[in-house]
Amino acid sequence: MLMQNVKGTFDFFGNEQLLRKKTQSVLQEVFELYDFDGMDSTMLNELDLLTSKYAGGDEIVKEMYQLTDQGMRNLGLRYDLTIPFAKVIALNPSIELPYKRYEIGKVFRDGPVKRGRLREFLQCDVDIVGVEGPEAEAELMQVAVEAFKRLNVPITLRWNNRKFLGEILEKNGVTSDEKLSVMLTLDKIEKIGNEGVVKELISKGLDPQVTSALTELIQIDDSSFEYLSNKYNIEKSKGSLEVHALQQLIDKLELDKACQFDPFLSRGLSFYTGTVYEIFDASKTFTSSLGGGGRYDAIIGKLVGREDIQYPTVGISFGMESIMEMIKNRPIQLPQPVVVVLPIGETVSVVLKTAAVLRSNGIRTGLEISKRKLKKSLSSVAAKGIRFVILIGEDEANAGMIRLKDMKEKTEIVVTLEEAIKRIEYERKSVL
Amino acid sequence: MLMQNVKGTFDFFGNEQLLRKKTQSVLQEVFELYDFDGMDSTMLNELDLLTSKYAGGDEIVKEMYQLTDQGMRNLGLRYDLTIPFAKVIALNPSIELPYKRYEIGKVFRDGPVKRGRLREFLQCDVDIVGVEGPEAEAELMQVAVEAFKRLNVPITLRWNNRKFLGEILEKNGVTSDEKLSVMLTLDKIEKIGNEGVVKELISKGLDPQVTSALTELIQIDDSSFEYLSNKYNIEKSKGSLEVHALQQLIDKLELDKACQFDPFLSRGLSFYTGTVYEIFDASKTFTSSLGGGGRYDAIIGKLVGREDIQYPTVGISFGMESIMEMIKNRPIQLPQPVVVVLPIGETVSVVLKTAAVLRSNGIRTGLEISKRKLKKSLSSVAAKGIRFVILIGEDEANAGMIRLKDMKEKTEIVVTLEEAIKRIEYERKSVL
Repeated sequence: MLMQNVKGTFDFFGNEQLLRKKTQSVLQEVFELYDFDGMDSTMLNELDLLTSKYAGGDEIVKEMYQLTDQGMRNLGLRYDLTIPFAKVIALNPSIELPYKRYEIGKVFRDGPVKRGRLREFLQCDVDIVGVEGPEAEAELMQVAVEAFKRLNVPITLRWNNRKFLGEILEKNGVTSDEKLSVMLTLDKIEKIGNEGVVKELISKGLDPQVTSALTELIQIDDSSFEYLSNKYNIEKSKGSLEVHALQQLIDKLELDKACQFDPFLSRGLSFYTGTVYEIFDASKTFTSSLGGGGRYDAIIGKLVGREDIQYPTVGISFGMESIMEMIKNRPIQLPQPVVVVLPIGETVSVVLKTAAVLRSNGIRTGLEISKRKLKKSLSSVAAKGIRFVILIGEDEANAGMIRLKDMKEKTEIVVTLEEAIKRIEYERKSVL
Repeated sequence: MLMQNVKGTFDFFGNEQLLRKKTQSVLQEVFELYDFDGMDSTMLNELDLLTSKYAGGDEIVKEMYQLTDQGMRNLGLRYDLTIPFAKVIALNPSIELPYKRYEIGKVFRDGPVKRGRLREFLQCDVDIVGVEGPEAEAELMQVAVEAFKRLNVPITLRWNNRKFLGEILEKNGVTSDEKLSVMLTLDKIEKIGNEGVVKELISKGLDPQVTSALTELIQIDDSSFEYLSNKYNIEKSKGSLEVHALQQLIDKLELDKACQFDPFLSRGLSFYTGTVYEIFDASKTFTSSLGGGGRYDAIIGKLVGREDIQYPTVGISFGMESIMEMIKNRPIQLPQPVVVVLPIGETVSVVLKTAAVLRSNGIRTGLEISKRKLKKSLSSVAAKGIRFVILIGEDEANAGMIRLKDMKEKTEIVVTLEEAIKRIEYERKSVL
């Protein structure tokens, strides 16, 4: 069958598109209040960039759409907004640091399709480059809390620090070669449960003593930062100091209710170097992540190939498709015309001209030129809750007048268009 | 070299992105005043849809990016917003006709790159399905005229009717097999000149008599509709009647200055069935098209495979990249924070918290936490024309107060944050 959408892709229109756009506006407004600068990076990218070892890593590259152009260049569709951002910073040394950007755009992943997870989907990202932290981390948490507050979605933001987790793993005998792989497994606790994690750890062929230490670790009663740093005697380690500093800020900013430390969170991507975040629905009606991010200090410098410039960077991404899964049933009213203009007889040209004048005056105007019976047209207008109708018959047209019907007041007057515009605007303002 | 953009693709940020977004907002505002409904169709599409004989035709398919997914499905990136729109209508019989949509989104073409012509670029389309015309054609001309008026770009919209052109070609001995191919050549007059067109016509191996008749035709002195329909005695033909009806409407709507009839215009795409448009810079400083479109009555019905339902459709597309080429040097001011908050000493947490309160009150707020010297920070704020600075030292923090500097009035007061917000908002409103 020719007519079908590609698996995992959807068209949006009507109420759904309106709600999507409103959600994007809310996010954009918050991003701009927080003084982030808008960006629109390329969707097509050099394959080498997307598969570079500093980029997303094997897991994500497997799901990348690849293509070639007529010049046989190897390209890929972006799978996130992070690598393209790193590219923009690397390519534009004139950008003054610290730099804060936001971007709302589509990304593509050829992966499993489920609720809130599509193959072509919208991400909304903010990133700060040039601040070592933890102020930048805390500011992104503020952005997330403010944005979801405005969206009226209760969230829990879980956070961790990869260095700290790495230090704990070391203390449990995990070698540096095994570290990333073990982290990726621990990250799945929510998804596959403790048993699933243990099974996967065993399958990795770690030293049995290490596996049993890790099994004990994930079943620990008290997984607080204080308990763990004390238990492993790493209170003064680099990771511990970072966690401590950010926790202090979170407490002072009174973000501690929404932002909870989780020592087993690590996020799938290999490029994170410090703090990682993941945002969840606090009401737990929706279990997938609503967004996430983290610090990736190493990528830009490595892409640029200059070890002498520091590009400490931290970002957070909001997933539009997950957010929509949570709010899609909210009532929303498609914008309606303020006034509908109707011809009676051969007055279509006058109707079109009248409509253009109304529109250039900032009045959203509909046309009813479908040649239905007048009564039908009027009842359709009434059903939509549209208040004003302008009828133009040949008599009115010849006299340079229009017939203004107020469907609410049930009045009808013959006036000039200027007079009608005044009345419509007066009534609109008195409603606002 | 790893770090480069794909040929014909660009990243946008800073002033350029701001100007692009403002331009999109202007277009979107006009589209909504004209009562079009927003849409966001898929970028990935089934290859079969994009290459279907009812779609864009060979010329455009050559420039399509193709790819496969892991399930080995054959896909393509959309090369315009028209075919995806036709798909949405075909797939959603519940959409009530007439239906008016707008869409602003990226499309992809692997073609030659030049000024205003990229490989990944933004189009802004409006389409009306369910109106046979010519009111729909005229309404789209109104949209174009209003939109470019608001953008302050002087335009000439050239228009024609493919049926009418086809009738003239028939009268000149062009067979129906040759018609489309001859049209595509005539369409290049502006690009390759009369001589180029004649050369291309000869290369097509038409009957020499036909070629010489066409050569005469394109060099005709009077290319008005009246002259041509009279000369070829086709005043009552289908094409002539359509041209006449639309011309009448254009005159009555006083669009005749901006909208000029051009009997040799035909547009590259094969799917147009009646009216075609193309928009040009009236000042002729930029020679590429700023947009175009036309009537494509056949596509949707054929995609649906139902001959019993009529889907008369007409659309017009605005090319963001061409528009940007014309307006990119306009002065524009990047949005600046209304106020910048600065820590003095160890008050970063108070600064972050203060900033969050300002932001949740709708005040765009910047942070200056780069640890530069205070004097440097202040002069950078002043250079950007930002009026307010909030300084928070440890004394202020302990007292629950902030220090508000008004850079314009050169005053400095120690007040509560609530008081500062009141003052900032008062000054902002008195500026507006």
